[in-house]
Amino acid sequence: MFQINENYQKLPGSYLFSTIAEKVAAFTKVNPDKPVIRLGIGDVTQPIAPAIIAAMHKAVDEMAEAGSFHGYAPDLGYEFLRTAIVQNDYEPNNCGIHADEVFISDGAKSDSSNIQEIFSTGCKIAVTDPVYPVYIDSNVMAGRCGTYDAAAQMWSNVVYMPCTKENGFVPDFPKEAPDLIYLCIPNNPTGTALTKSQLQDWVDYANQNGAAIIYDAAYEAYIHEPDVPHSIYECKGAKNCAIEIRSFSKNAGFTGVRLGFTVVPKELSCGGVSLHAMWARRHGTKYNGAPYIIQRAGEAAYSKEGKEQLKCQVAAYMKNAAAIKKGLQADGYEVFGGVNAPYIWMKTPGHMTSWEFFDYLLEHANVVGTPGSGFGPSGEGYFRLTAFGSYENTTAALERIHAI
Amino acid sequence: MFQINENYQKLPGSYLFSTIAEKVAAFTKVNPDKPVIRLGIGDVTQPIAPAIIAAMHKAVDEMAEAGSFHGYAPDLGYEFLRTAIVQNDYEPNNCGIHADEVFISDGAKSDSSNIQEIFSTGCKIAVTDPVYPVYIDSNVMAGRCGTYDAAAQMWSNVVYMPCTKENGFVPDFPKEAPDLIYLCIPNNPTGTALTKSQLQDWVDYANQNGAAIIYDAAYEAYIHEPDVPHSIYECKGAKNCAIEIRSFSKNAGFTGVRLGFTVVPKELSCGGVSLHAMWARRHGTKYNGAPYIIQRAGEAAYSKEGKEQLKCQVAAYMKNAAAIKKGLQADGYEVFGGVNAPYIWMKTPGHMTSWEFFDYLLEHANVVGTPGSGFGPSGEGYFRLTAFGSYENTTAALERIHAI
Repeated sequence: MFQINENYQKLPGSYLFSTIAEKVAAFTKVNPDKPVIRLGIGDVTQPIAPAIIAAMHKAVDEMAEAGSFHGYAPDLGYEFLRTAIVQNDYEPNNCGIHADEVFISDGAKSDSSNIQEIFSTGCKIAVTDPVYPVYIDSNVMAGRCGTYDAAAQMWSNVVYMPCTKENGFVPDFPKEAPDLIYLCIPNNPTGTALTKSQLQDWVDYANQNGAAIIYDAAYEAYIHEPDVPHSIYECKGAKNCAIEIRSFSKNAGFTGVRLGFTVVPKELSCGGVSLHAMWARRHGTKYNGAPYIIQRAGEAAYSKEGKEQLKCQVAAYMKNAAAIKKGLQADGYEVFGGVNAPYIWMKTPGHMTSWEFFDYLLEHANVVGTPGSGFGPSGEGYFRLTAFGSYENTTAALERIHAI
Repeated sequence: MFQINENYQKLPGSYLFSTIAEKVAAFTKVNPDKPVIRLGIGDVTQPIAPAIIAAMHKAVDEMAEAGSFHGYAPDLGYEFLRTAIVQNDYEPNNCGIHADEVFISDGAKSDSSNIQEIFSTGCKIAVTDPVYPVYIDSNVMAGRCGTYDAAAQMWSNVVYMPCTKENGFVPDFPKEAPDLIYLCIPNNPTGTALTKSQLQDWVDYANQNGAAIIYDAAYEAYIHEPDVPHSIYECKGAKNCAIEIRSFSKNAGFTGVRLGFTVVPKELSCGGVSLHAMWARRHGTKYNGAPYIIQRAGEAAYSKEGKEQLKCQVAAYMKNAAAIKKGLQADGYEVFGGVNAPYIWMKTPGHMTSWEFFDYLLEHANVVGTPGSGFGPSGEGYFRLTAFGSYENTTAALERIHAI
C-alpha cells in the first residue's frame, strides 16, 4: 500500500499569497464598484523591454527553421547566456566566478526550493525572521523542520534570526550554529541590505562554523548604495561556503517569462564531495533546461540596449519606492527599506496586527499590501508594500491611504 | 557542520546520454572527416510548426505592452491551456478528467522525477526493465532504492519487471506488490505498447494491491493501433490509482521549448489525503509556472491548423520508423517497436553486448544509437534507434549499416 510524504501534512494552511488573493477576491465580489490597487505580491507591471522582445522574436524565428531549430539545451544552460552572466555580473567585481559554475534555471523560486535536496535531511536550517516562505516550506516538505507550533508560528527544528527595527533588520549570529543559512539580500520582505563588512562577517561565521549559506540575490538590481555588495562572492572565502541564487524576474520583469540561475562554486565541497557536481547531477536528472527562446531573452538583458532599458525600468520602480516612503512618512508612519530594494516595510499604526492593518487598508483605502506576520513571527506589527505598481497606481494608493 | 544528501553518492557514473555524448565527441575529434548520424538521444529535428510559431510571436508581442503583459502565471497553469488539453486529450475518450486536475509544467522529465516527492520515502518502486533512467535516479536521490549492485546493474530495493522478446515486452505482475509502479507506454526504450485490456489489468492490479501507477504517456501521439489506449483514464478505476504525465516534446517538437503536464485526479487519495492537494502544494511552493509565451505555444498545438501540422510531423517520424524497421529486417536484424512509438528496439547481432554494438556502429557506420543495457540489465543485448532524425539522415544511416 503506497504511503504519502507525511511532511506535507505538517504545513499549516495555504500559501500566504493564496490567502491574500482569496481575501481580495471576496472583497471585490462584494464591492465591484471599488477598484483595488495591488501593492501586495511582488509581481512586476512594466512590459518586457524592447531589446528583449526583439531577441525573443528572433529566437522564435530560429525555432521555425530546421537549420536553426534548437532541441534539448545543454544541461547547465547555453554557453552564450552563462558567459554573458559572468562577464556582466561577476567579472566587474572580481568575484572569480566562471561560466561553468553558473546553472541556468526557470527561476529563483525553483532553485531556492530545490537547492536543499543536495543536503542531508539532518541539516538544521536558519532563516531570518521575517522570511520568504518558500525557504521554510521546501524544507518542511523534505522533513527538516520538526513540528509546527501554530501559536508561536514557529517550527521546532528551525533557527529563527529575528530582524526588527531594534537590530536595524540585521540578524544576529545564532547561538546554536546551523548547517544551512538562508540569506536574502537585499531583503524580501524588509527591504534592507547588508554592507560588505556585515556580509563578510556572515561569510566568516559560516566558514568558522562549517555552515553553508544559500544567498538569494534576486533583488540585486535595486542596490544603490556603494557599500552594499552585489554578490556574496565579493566577500573573501565565500566560494568555500556560499551558493548564490539570482533571478531575472525583478531586474528584467521576467515573472511570467521565467529565468534565473544559481552559482555553485567548484571550491564548495563537503567531505571531499563537490556540491557543484551534485547540483549538476540534480540538474541533469530532475530538470531539462530553460527554453531556448527564454535563454536568448536572458542574453538580451545583458546587451547594451537591454541594460539601458532595464536601468530605466528599475529606476521607475525605485521612483515608486521613494514616493511610498516619502508619502507614508509624511503621514506619520514609521517606514523602512525602499533604498536598496523595491520593498517598503512599515510599522502598522497603533496596536494593529499585520492582518488587522491588511483588512483596514483593503476596506478603507482599497489598497492591498502584505501582512508582515505572513513572513514569520517577527513580522507581526509590520506590513509590506511593493514598488512594482505603476506610478499612477502607486501615487493613487498613497492618496487613498492619506485620506483615511 | 553541513552534510550532503549521501544518496547522491550511490549513483553510479554519469547519466547515460552524457556518456554517449562523450564517446561521440571523442570519436569526432579523432575522425573529423567522418560525419556522424545521430539516432541516439530522443531529440527531435523538425522545426516548430507554423501555427505554433505564429502563436509565440503573438504572445511575445503581448509581453511588450503593459496592457497585455503577463506576470506570474496561475499556480496550475493558464485556464486556456488546461481547457484545450481536456477538450482534446481527455473528453474524446470519455476519460472524465477536468481542467482543474491538469497541472502545467516545464516538461515530463521534471514531472516524472519530481512526482515521487509527494510519496513516502518508505515506498518501494517498481520499474520495467529496461527503463527510462530518470525514474530510478530520482528515487535514488530521495533514498528509496537501497544500494547498487554494479555487477547486476540493479538496486537492492527496486522491483524490476523484465521486458524482453520472450514476454513480448509486456511486464509480468511483480510477485512482491510494490507501492509505486512506473509505466511508460508507448514504451521508451522498447517502442512497444499495451492493449486496453492489458492496461486495464494493470489498473486492477494497482487497485487490488494499493499501489499507485505513475503513467508516462509522453509518446501518446505515436499510437496508431486502435486497441491501444491513449490515456490510462480510459481504463475503469484508473482515477483511483493513476497519475498521468504528458509531454509536448515528441508530438509538437518542444524538446527545446519545454512544456508538459501532469494529471492528478481528485479521486486519488491515501488515508483521506488528496494527492491532488499535495501536488498543488508542491507546485505552489517549488515551482512558479511555465512561461506565458510557452503556454500559448501549447495552446496553439491544439488549434485546427496546429493539429494538422503536428499530424504531418508525427507521420514523418513514423515514416522513418517504418524505414528503419524494414531496412534492418531486410539486413537480417531482429527488430521490435516502431509501430506505436518512434523507437526501434533491435537485438544486437551475434553475441555482441549493447556497448560493443554501440562502438561497432559508431566506428564502422558512424551511426549513433543507444545501448540497451544503459536502460537496465534486461536491455543487455538490445539497441535503441530513434525515428527523430531527418528522412535523409535516417535512410543514409540505414545504407551505412547495410554496407557493414
